[in-house]
Amino acid sequence: MQAAQVKFDTAGFLRQQPLFAGLKDSTLKNFSEYAVLRAEKKGTQLFSADAPNEQFFVVVSGWVKLFRETLDGEEAIIDILTAGQSFGEIGLSGSEPMPYGAAVVDDAQLVVLPRFMLAEEVMRNSVFGLAALQALTRQRIQRDLEIEHRTVQSAPQRIGCFLLKFCTGHAEEDAHTLHLPYDKAAIAYKLGMKPETFSRALQNLKADLGITVKGNAVTIPSVKALVDFTCSACSSSFPCKV
Amino acid sequence: MQAAQVKFDTAGFLRQQPLFAGLKDSTLKNFSEYAVLRAEKKGTQLFSADAPNEQFFVVVSGWVKLFRETLDGEEAIIDILTAGQSFGEIGLSGSEPMPYGAAVVDDAQLVVLPRFMLAEEVMRNSVFGLAALQALTRQRIQRDLEIEHRTVQSAPQRIGCFLLKFCTGHAEEDAHTLHLPYDKAAIAYKLGMKPETFSRALQNLKADLGITVKGNAVTIPSVKALVDFTCSACSSSFPCKV
Repeated sequence: MQAAQVKFDTAGFLRQQPLFAGLKDSTLKNFSEYAVLRAEKKGTQLFSADAPNEQFFVVVSGWVKLFRETLDGEEAIIDILTAGQSFGEIGLSGSEPMPYGAAVVDDAQLVVLPRFMLAEEVMRNSVFGLAALQALTRQRIQRDLEIEHRTVQSAPQRIGCFLLKFCTGHAEEDAHTLHLPYDKAAIAYKLGMKPETFSRALQNLKADLGITVKGNAVTIPSVKALVDFTCSACSSSFPCKV
Repeated sequence: MQAAQVKFDTAGFLRQQPLFAGLKDSTLKNFSEYAVLRAEKKGTQLFSADAPNEQFFVVVSGWVKLFRETLDGEEAIIDILTAGQSFGEIGLSGSEPMPYGAAVVDDAQLVVLPRFMLAEEVMRNSVFGLAALQALTRQRIQRDLEIEHRTVQSAPQRIGCFLLKFCTGHAEEDAHTLHLPYDKAAIAYKLGMKPETFSRALQNLKADLGITVKGNAVTIPSVKALVDFTCSACSSSFPCKV
């Protein structure tokens, strides 16, 4: 892990993330000195719900799920994150418990920052405070959309929406291949479906839009056709701004 | 409306809201000079989705719904707010469109503040910036819980959860009466149910827990019994922190 830390340009990586883009070089350098690059295997629990809120994570590669467990013992997956997405709560104090647990779904690399550094930067630097507010606003809007989708989208459309999140920046007419976590059940649960509903809905997408799945590679022959199919039942339009 | 403005203690009202509690008296006084108290009738549209983001609203009384419309023309209600709850996006600039529309569900009084004043205060005063981050974090966690509930709670439990939000601070053993909007369909849609599913689920709550509905007054004979029924299928516990 030490070797990886030497090679990885943490400051450069953070600079590419919207949350950190407005920071001064000296601040980014200070952050990256305290940052740790962690490589974690599939199945590793990073923290549990109700753990103290001490760290902020940015995913470099792989997949991480955020989850909660009900008193009845059922697991609800509230998000599934990949490269460039972050988790941890700058807005809560260190003594407040985490509102979710986190576990690695597919081998992941993560940049881990002490939360107190970010909270202090919010107090010191209002530009960073506003960037954090913007990031959180977009997270909340994304959740709003997801709640909307549970009401108005069909199961195949919800899968389509999940896939399209990874298609931004690609020409709509072109085919596009993306890599999902091997564990499809995690995606099913994140979308609020039973695995069998997910399988059935994926079959529909294969039959109607020619989408193919081979291992963890999903190939979409026409992003535009998927957009037409999915985004009619949404109040946002592709490419989704959140 | 002028008369109401004179009588209403805007600074005192804002002081009671978590977002504004940490502000200096002079700042609150400045805010309240720019604030307008608006009385709006049921059915009034306050703004549409994609309107410019210019105002921040705090509900004094009545009910307001936040909604989005899909390209197919279906309405999705993403929230339904009452006294002490706020909406408007401090984290987005004035040129970014509102991510939802807002309309009055039951005659409402609202304190309306210019968004730019709050955004400027975030830049000037990091304590306010942190309060805004906390408020948004809690909004996002509340959305997380709602997504969880769509997966793991039954329709009667989801109604129970909605009712319990208005029962905090009451002795769990006691009966409690609360006033919902007359338009029950708005609550149904907010909870992601068809009105007929909502009616059926409410019948279950009446039969199993003795809850009675008379006009817009809902009486819960034992808050504790409703908590036992509802919160077993949730990862949070009563009283809900978000």
